[in-house]
Amino acid sequence: MNGAQALLRTLVAGGVDTCFMNPGTSEMHFVAALDDVPEMRSVLALFEGVATGAADGYARMAGRPAAVLLHLGPGLGNGLANLHNARRARTPVLNVVGDHATYHKPLDAPLESDIDSIAAGVSGWIRRPLKTSELPADAADALAAAWGPPGQVATLILPADVSWSEGASPAGAPALRPPPPPPEGAVESAAAALESGRPAGLLVGGRACTAALLDRLGAIAAGTGARLLCETFPARIRRGAGVVAPERLAYLGEMAAAQLEGLAHLVLVDAKSPVSFFAYPGKPSDLVPDGCRVHPLCGPAEDVAAAVEALASLVPTVAPRLPPSERPDPPSGPLTASALADAVGLLLPEEAVVADESNTSGLFVAAATAGAPPHDWMTLTGGSIGIGMPLAAGAAVASPGRRVLALEADGSAMYTVQALWTMAREGLDVTTVVLANHSYAILNMELQRVGAGAGGPRARRMLDLSGPDIDFVSLARGMGVPASRATTAEELVDQLGRALSEPGPSLVEAVVVR
Amino acid sequence: MNGAQALLRTLVAGGVDTCFMNPGTSEMHFVAALDDVPEMRSVLALFEGVATGAADGYARMAGRPAAVLLHLGPGLGNGLANLHNARRARTPVLNVVGDHATYHKPLDAPLESDIDSIAAGVSGWIRRPLKTSELPADAADALAAAWGPPGQVATLILPADVSWSEGASPAGAPALRPPPPPPEGAVESAAAALESGRPAGLLVGGRACTAALLDRLGAIAAGTGARLLCETFPARIRRGAGVVAPERLAYLGEMAAAQLEGLAHLVLVDAKSPVSFFAYPGKPSDLVPDGCRVHPLCGPAEDVAAAVEALASLVPTVAPRLPPSERPDPPSGPLTASALADAVGLLLPEEAVVADESNTSGLFVAAATAGAPPHDWMTLTGGSIGIGMPLAAGAAVASPGRRVLALEADGSAMYTVQALWTMAREGLDVTTVVLANHSYAILNMELQRVGAGAGGPRARRMLDLSGPDIDFVSLARGMGVPASRATTAEELVDQLGRALSEPGPSLVEAVVVR
Repeated sequence: MNGAQALLRTLVAGGVDTCFMNPGTSEMHFVAALDDVPEMRSVLALFEGVATGAADGYARMAGRPAAVLLHLGPGLGNGLANLHNARRARTPVLNVVGDHATYHKPLDAPLESDIDSIAAGVSGWIRRPLKTSELPADAADALAAAWGPPGQVATLILPADVSWSEGASPAGAPALRPPPPPPEGAVESAAAALESGRPAGLLVGGRACTAALLDRLGAIAAGTGARLLCETFPARIRRGAGVVAPERLAYLGEMAAAQLEGLAHLVLVDAKSPVSFFAYPGKPSDLVPDGCRVHPLCGPAEDVAAAVEALASLVPTVAPRLPPSERPDPPSGPLTASALADAVGLLLPEEAVVADESNTSGLFVAAATAGAPPHDWMTLTGGSIGIGMPLAAGAAVASPGRRVLALEADGSAMYTVQALWTMAREGLDVTTVVLANHSYAILNMELQRVGAGAGGPRARRMLDLSGPDIDFVSLARGMGVPASRATTAEELVDQLGRALSEPGPSLVEAVVVR
Repeated sequence: MNGAQALLRTLVAGGVDTCFMNPGTSEMHFVAALDDVPEMRSVLALFEGVATGAADGYARMAGRPAAVLLHLGPGLGNGLANLHNARRARTPVLNVVGDHATYHKPLDAPLESDIDSIAAGVSGWIRRPLKTSELPADAADALAAAWGPPGQVATLILPADVSWSEGASPAGAPALRPPPPPPEGAVESAAAALESGRPAGLLVGGRACTAALLDRLGAIAAGTGARLLCETFPARIRRGAGVVAPERLAYLGEMAAAQLEGLAHLVLVDAKSPVSFFAYPGKPSDLVPDGCRVHPLCGPAEDVAAAVEALASLVPTVAPRLPPSERPDPPSGPLTASALADAVGLLLPEEAVVADESNTSGLFVAAATAGAPPHDWMTLTGGSIGIGMPLAAGAAVASPGRRVLALEADGSAMYTVQALWTMAREGLDVTTVVLANHSYAILNMELQRVGAGAGGPRARRMLDLSGPDIDFVSLARGMGVPASRATTAEELVDQLGRALSEPGPSLVEAVVVR
């Protein structure tokens, strides 16, 4: 068989049976091989950032990597922003980038580009097989690298002739490395900190945000009096009624600093020591309070479940307080950010998956959904906007039978708006709510926060999405997604309720009060 | 003044007075400075690929660079594909990429990324100023580097604190290097080839595609009996009635090889030696016929006008044959690719600027417009699709009073469809014709050409843009651009005629026969 066929067989043997793609000429043998390997599901995206964001969402929900197929350096460039987010989420991604045939590269044809250099910033592993016979083993290595731990983007640069030549045999599933235990002394140090009698916090992130581990961490917090905090942008966290609810650190550094104030110890559970998102003149970038000691219990490469159990065996534990089941009352009147949050909290289905890129207008949604039926919540891990709808599409592919809700700020939605077409083609159960304030509202705030003042009219025009207002109903329908517009709280409740109950994709443009 | 203000003043002093942007928090002082430096026009794009493609189109038409403002590594990634095209067009681009403050970078905040590595593949020059006082001189160096010759992408990575700190003074306009003469002996070698009595060709590209140089090259060809050929994808070429018309090399390697067959000498005039776009099993990648000698007259760094004059002084010249003024008859009936071409040829306004990303459906447009009133034609230089509408937007900003026509394949249009919003906001005189065949038609062809066969149903579904069909009228209206759909030749003539005559942007979806 040829290289492409053996590659697909190797991926399937390794548990990767979904590929999000935007292929070109150099990937045609990979595409042709889809008919030889029907176990591989292929999903077309009309823009590469949709494919990479979907692979991220898929893996966050499926717990195993998807493949991505991209076309040379420019295709990789188009997919780079969401690979950056995947890198920050520590999502395993098997990233196949087609390249010119090995003998064609020296000719510097128009699409010749420095793929290795472009891939370096987002990939934990990069390899360029040069022989068809070695491609399957390289693909198995790529899979093992993607799995980690920690999960990472593994980029396999695939020359067209390596793909099309004969002489390959599929490789078997790669041996996966079990995560090692936490570093020597880490558990004891964390336990001592929690039992020191001084104010302590547990900062939870990464793979520690499952229901089971949150429950154990909640018991440790309750037993030791420590505060239970969560990183600002978890890749996937379980939440809702009956699920231990850590307090999420705020995006704004000042608010996060206030949340951390007074702590003498901070134990990191697969989380990074907190820093501000951006630098601001005269404000600290490191958010750990002066005098607070930081204790990494375990990092992303280590066995977080074992670390938490070990910690629980050394300190007192008490059954944690759990959020009761409760929903907001139906909102009415003007469609404020608070009314929007109440509508989501009122209607969020059981076992929903939320892709949250709601930014400023979504401020109140977390509180309003705290008592909703248990659900999973995914966030913008790397700060590169344009992830929400792709993430939702990928999550829906991974989670048949569950409703995916994409909460999308309008500015962010426009980066990868092509995701709507993929939702329509695949008939995905994704309900997208676009929070339309016709502004890069966060930048209007940041303009002042960085000390640049309120901005003159020319500056403010660069942060303003009006003139013309974007009509998301028209955009969605143009890509085959049924859509409606809500301008009052009542309309939103009505339209969102209908959208969440109908199969397939839909979009509600929520025109929030500016 | 602060770094951002001095940077903007330096750019304006150096002749750069337009900036296409998609900024974020780390660029807020640059944005705020727009009110202090009103000579700088700023144009907002909702996606970075629109900003970079527009900068390319702007410079191709204005003959001087625009600036681009992008947000960190992910923003650069989003803009990378069209920077690749700009690199291939040898377009000067002043590419400013904001970064975290210098002291914030070691903290590895979520948006921290390897900007240098991502930029390396597309930039001819990269610098990261670390002191506010040195920023203006670095900006002037960046400008000089962008200008070249050859024109290139110069990337200035701008840390937020270098931008916001006080203590900068604007630098003056940089000294531009005049292009050196062609290499020793190049003119004589070319002249000897043309006068050898054996079949010779002149392959024209780059900056040799102006009316004046085409006229001189046409005279040389007519005087020596050489064939006058043009590279497949010129950045900008003058054409139409009364303008010397070289024969453009075909995209398909087999056809290009046939065009070059029999040549004993090929003289390159700011063009590269022809190679096939992609590699195909068993087919040659180098398109120069066996036994044909290649003579580079001058490259992109050298003085092409001087080289052409020097050549003309050594060989006989004869007034060239010029294309007569002629238009196709109004087409009627089914909207075939040929009818579409006739409609464009019939209606193309005098001094139009065409951004051509029409791919397969545009096959006949070049012939149908050969006798239209003189106009400029821009093509997809780097092969990375998604350039057409951004290129058109930038060209329109650079060319007030001229009508820009974007010929857009539907698949390509979707990569940077957000360009329509920028056209609407800026009121640009761009008429976009989307050639809707609901297919990556070129890939259906390439699938067979690479020897992968006709493809099974699963492969073909990855090359098919139907299910759902994209409604470009709805997409355009959603972004504030008036639009209509033509399903017959008569409807297209009617709608295109109207669209070309009305001020501001418009879109016609031409549903071409599949």
